[in-house]
Amino acid sequence: MCQLLGMNCNVPTDICFSFEGFCARGGKTDEHIDGWGIAFFEHLGCRVFLDDNPSIKSPIAQLVKHYPIKSKNVIAHIRKATYGKVGLENCHPFQRELWGNYWVFAHNGDLHNFEPPLHGSYQPVGTTDSEKAFCYILETLRHSFPQEKPLLNELYPVLKSITKTISEYGIFNYLLSNGEYLFTHSTTNLYYFIRQAPFATAHLIDEDITVDFRSVTDDSDRVAVIATMPLTDNEQWVKVPTGQLLVFKNGDVINFSP
Amino acid sequence: MCQLLGMNCNVPTDICFSFEGFCARGGKTDEHIDGWGIAFFEHLGCRVFLDDNPSIKSPIAQLVKHYPIKSKNVIAHIRKATYGKVGLENCHPFQRELWGNYWVFAHNGDLHNFEPPLHGSYQPVGTTDSEKAFCYILETLRHSFPQEKPLLNELYPVLKSITKTISEYGIFNYLLSNGEYLFTHSTTNLYYFIRQAPFATAHLIDEDITVDFRSVTDDSDRVAVIATMPLTDNEQWVKVPTGQLLVFKNGDVINFSP
Repeated sequence: MCQLLGMNCNVPTDICFSFEGFCARGGKTDEHIDGWGIAFFEHLGCRVFLDDNPSIKSPIAQLVKHYPIKSKNVIAHIRKATYGKVGLENCHPFQRELWGNYWVFAHNGDLHNFEPPLHGSYQPVGTTDSEKAFCYILETLRHSFPQEKPLLNELYPVLKSITKTISEYGIFNYLLSNGEYLFTHSTTNLYYFIRQAPFATAHLIDEDITVDFRSVTDDSDRVAVIATMPLTDNEQWVKVPTGQLLVFKNGDVINFSP
Repeated sequence: MCQLLGMNCNVPTDICFSFEGFCARGGKTDEHIDGWGIAFFEHLGCRVFLDDNPSIKSPIAQLVKHYPIKSKNVIAHIRKATYGKVGLENCHPFQRELWGNYWVFAHNGDLHNFEPPLHGSYQPVGTTDSEKAFCYILETLRHSFPQEKPLLNELYPVLKSITKTISEYGIFNYLLSNGEYLFTHSTTNLYYFIRQAPFATAHLIDEDITVDFRSVTDDSDRVAVIATMPLTDNEQWVKVPTGQLLVFKNGDVINFSP
């Protein structure tokens, strides 16, 4: 299995603190040693750093830990290979373009005998079940809305439906973003915490590091952190219920009736 | 204008030496300070590093200079913004997927009043003429070969024709790769040099650095380096004639009659 980390904020924020703890799971506090990746949206642009080395040994992970890239939407993944061999082409997050926006996707879980009918607009480059699922999601969205990006309340039920279909093949915890929204789906393990005023200190589980967020935030800042397992031991993480597709924007869960 | 750097090899090779000289053109020996990027193919996978900071000030460029990523196809670009504002979404190289392969593209030049008819399979994320041209090329290739990747001698005339069409809008020096071939087109400035046995020393123009390639190569190694302007002052760079579309594979120019 793999581990997921996501961040969605109302102002561009760096992920150095959370990534420090997450990164330790790539070979130090956990066994996810078959590569890793992280994608940062910045305005419409997107940077994806990938490495098929374990994150604790990766010079690129060292860079990401110490170079505070500020972003409103981040998706990271560390890999324990199940389907698909170890190789750069099988590292998450995957990236494609749809409706003139980049879309980024990372998955935790296994899909069994999953061979979706792909018609060519998105084809997997690697051999993971995860990239197939991503291509199938994007193809379905494009087919449903061929001309242009729909409104969220039009997009949501289509994404929910295709997610339900894919979930029938196995465990389908995922993070998906187009730089505006961060979609999260849980089958088994996915937790989130919304860090907002009044800010306090936070202490990592995987490294003995504490940050006092009072000294590095404004009262209006709001940051949602989403992870396979909680990253801190003194914050109240919420478990995402099985089968729920959440939408984060500006550091909060959107409540809407689709 | 911008500067291009490409590398195509018969065995995975690092680009540290060439990138050192090239990188100096991003604010030290030349004025291309509006961002940069580099893409490395590794087997089917591809890593793209982008930064909207000048390459001489970029921590990511420092990483790339000192972390020897080995690749058979590399495309790099440093940007002097003309069309499109400074921003990550406008940094080259651009990446898309076609026929289950990643394709990477970087452009030097300006296309005037270039508004190609794009039908949705590839849409620009940023606002450059270059990304429009890339989308138009991929859409044309997909439209011509909707089912699967054609043979090179089928693909070449289509790419040549669409390149000629786009060239009518202005200067269109470009590098394009799918990880197997590196296509280069020149309108004005593009030079290449094929480094092969018997190897010798090479001295950079932009930095006072010399490498003795005899000590770091095997006799069978062959590396084609392609750049807007020659990178070394003691090697015989060949200027690509105007309007010529070259195809590099395994460190050499493919001679074939399309």
